[in-house]
Amino acid sequence: MPQINDHYLKLKAGYLFPEIARRVKAYAGAHPDAKIIRMGIGDVTEPLVPAVIQAMHKAVDEMAVRGSFKGYGDEQGYGFLREAIAKNDFQSRGCDVAADEVFVSDGSKCDTGNILDIFGKDNKILVTDPVYPVYVDTNVMAGHTGPLKENGEAEGLVYVPMTAENDFTPAIPTEKVDIVYLCSPNNPTGATLSREALTKWVEYAKKNDAVIFFDAAYESFIQDPAVPRSIYEIPGARDVAIEFRSFSKLAGFTGVRCAFTVVPKSLKGRAKDGSAVEIYKLWNRRHTTKFNGVSYITQAGAAAVYTPEGRQQVDAVIAHYMANAKTIRESLTALGMKVYGGTNAPYVWVRTPGGLTSWAFFDKLLNECHVVCTPGSGFGKSGEGYVRVSAFNSKENVAEAMGRIKGTLKV
Amino acid sequence: MPQINDHYLKLKAGYLFPEIARRVKAYAGAHPDAKIIRMGIGDVTEPLVPAVIQAMHKAVDEMAVRGSFKGYGDEQGYGFLREAIAKNDFQSRGCDVAADEVFVSDGSKCDTGNILDIFGKDNKILVTDPVYPVYVDTNVMAGHTGPLKENGEAEGLVYVPMTAENDFTPAIPTEKVDIVYLCSPNNPTGATLSREALTKWVEYAKKNDAVIFFDAAYESFIQDPAVPRSIYEIPGARDVAIEFRSFSKLAGFTGVRCAFTVVPKSLKGRAKDGSAVEIYKLWNRRHTTKFNGVSYITQAGAAAVYTPEGRQQVDAVIAHYMANAKTIRESLTALGMKVYGGTNAPYVWVRTPGGLTSWAFFDKLLNECHVVCTPGSGFGKSGEGYVRVSAFNSKENVAEAMGRIKGTLKV
Repeated sequence: MPQINDHYLKLKAGYLFPEIARRVKAYAGAHPDAKIIRMGIGDVTEPLVPAVIQAMHKAVDEMAVRGSFKGYGDEQGYGFLREAIAKNDFQSRGCDVAADEVFVSDGSKCDTGNILDIFGKDNKILVTDPVYPVYVDTNVMAGHTGPLKENGEAEGLVYVPMTAENDFTPAIPTEKVDIVYLCSPNNPTGATLSREALTKWVEYAKKNDAVIFFDAAYESFIQDPAVPRSIYEIPGARDVAIEFRSFSKLAGFTGVRCAFTVVPKSLKGRAKDGSAVEIYKLWNRRHTTKFNGVSYITQAGAAAVYTPEGRQQVDAVIAHYMANAKTIRESLTALGMKVYGGTNAPYVWVRTPGGLTSWAFFDKLLNECHVVCTPGSGFGKSGEGYVRVSAFNSKENVAEAMGRIKGTLKV
Repeated sequence: MPQINDHYLKLKAGYLFPEIARRVKAYAGAHPDAKIIRMGIGDVTEPLVPAVIQAMHKAVDEMAVRGSFKGYGDEQGYGFLREAIAKNDFQSRGCDVAADEVFVSDGSKCDTGNILDIFGKDNKILVTDPVYPVYVDTNVMAGHTGPLKENGEAEGLVYVPMTAENDFTPAIPTEKVDIVYLCSPNNPTGATLSREALTKWVEYAKKNDAVIFFDAAYESFIQDPAVPRSIYEIPGARDVAIEFRSFSKLAGFTGVRCAFTVVPKSLKGRAKDGSAVEIYKLWNRRHTTKFNGVSYITQAGAAAVYTPEGRQQVDAVIAHYMANAKTIRESLTALGMKVYGGTNAPYVWVRTPGGLTSWAFFDKLLNECHVVCTPGSGFGKSGEGYVRVSAFNSKENVAEAMGRIKGTLKV
């Protein structure tokens, strides 16, 4: 038999969301009348906006006619979309990002995993804790870690806590690392990194020849104008950072699949012989060899987000989700709970009351209120004692869930 | 600076198609009046069929309404599509493939590259020669090879010639290998593997504990009922083969992006401790962690190919391309050239006349006829002395190109 990649065997079988699904299913099976409200998984609930729908219908029609039919496009994306992204998301905010530094893809989850392909095996890697599990799992798969420890941490990774105690601002490490994952607005905590904090990370990366993987998939939820929307707002970031963005939460594209990654041409890595190599060229080679571009129809839809009416429409949907986040924050605060996030992110990070573990509070909410949340401990050891509540829902469901918690829960 | 994946530096900068593009551009620049007909790159030219267009419009409309909106789907694909594939492409032909063994993806190019993630680093790998360059490049990237040799071959891979001399039937190796890439109908030669030949490969794989990567992206062009359309038509193949399929050429989806890979649950690999591991579980973990599913709209369009009217419509487009292939075959044969393929594949593999090299004949066709083909040597050393002519074109362009070759070329 062919040899397998043994690193896969290090992964835990029971991932967070399957375990949640198992408990919800078990409860629902035993209580068929319970009307369960899901505020766990981070999927959008509102439909695509009219500007996107219109653009996609038009694109479908173009595909029906020989003269306007599109076969293979450039793997990196259509010029019309790359230019709209560079102009609206970066240049308009003073960030020096060119259209050909934008690589359109089918998802940030994919990109944050695939980016590891072009890096070596011996880099020291830092993640914040709690952490989006895909960062860890893909490093385990790539053989960048030792076995998983009892507490779920992968041996060999550097974990930096992000908790209420440090105001969800991960401390700059004293040791040297080569790759730093930062996610702002953060999944799962909903916290954002300030300009000052980000500046310190860019300075750290410059000093230590590190690269920052900056995951800004939730950028569109930032309400505070002081919070950076891109790492390229920080001087010097072009030399040290790759940025990941997505249309998934911005425009409800979780089922449509479009994202992009910015790889500046000034970012360098080191070959074994010590020479400097443009990361851009490596990613371009990977993207054109192992990927074949995003559906033209999807890209046409994504470009509609950059029209004035498209932007206005997606902003209204984001406002809807942020109103939900506000309701969640205020309702739980009124019950005496400590809540974080939810002001620049669609996630509210809730301290469990009475010192309950994350799973104990999850079970309590499920059993007593028929509300599903996500146990913070599923995101890492520093997530213990928290749960994540998602604002992706209808206004009615959020009101109903908060009403049940108020009426039922003995905090 | 972070360490890079040095294996990328082994790759050649000048890939086949960029070099073709460079020469065509240079010629067109010097001869602005030349009406160049492109019969090189393997991209479809005909629009999507009405059944697909209709299904995609319907899907777009569903995405516009909260009640029918689709967020994240299963990463492996929607049940409606996986079931249609399992039933129509496999079970109807007596192949034992279940719907949950079908993994829907955004492209066969992606899948044939990504599949290497789940295998170890020390497998002995066999490719046929000429070869689809992505098989080789992705093995180079993954560090499965030594440097590239002068003739473009990657050191460490086993190359098995497929030429006119062996009737394009690669010889079963006498040595033991762990992974075998087979592509039938073949890109670039247009040849197919007979039931007898495939049976020998399956027996070889069983005997040598090897896995076969069977790339059937051009399956829909098979006209001869005796030629297997799936490797699973061969008894025992479930235990040794992964099959790659695509809607790209079947339904003109090169710009829409949908493919699928079949990983049977009975296929095993070996861990370092000697234990057997289900390849299915590894691929499922990879697919759900590093991929996020295909656009719902795309999947809805793909499913329409399995309706009676959808099938009839895509068959008509395939018949159009196959009529072009026939024209190409007959025209070049009438000029005294030796042609292969083009009867069960959209590619005609042409022996260069007068002992010309592939590139010399490429230049001759470009300069004298303004027709672009693909030099066979770009696919490997055994491709030298051949060019690939693609049938993806309008009937008019093919007739015009053949007329020019007849009128101009001194064979």
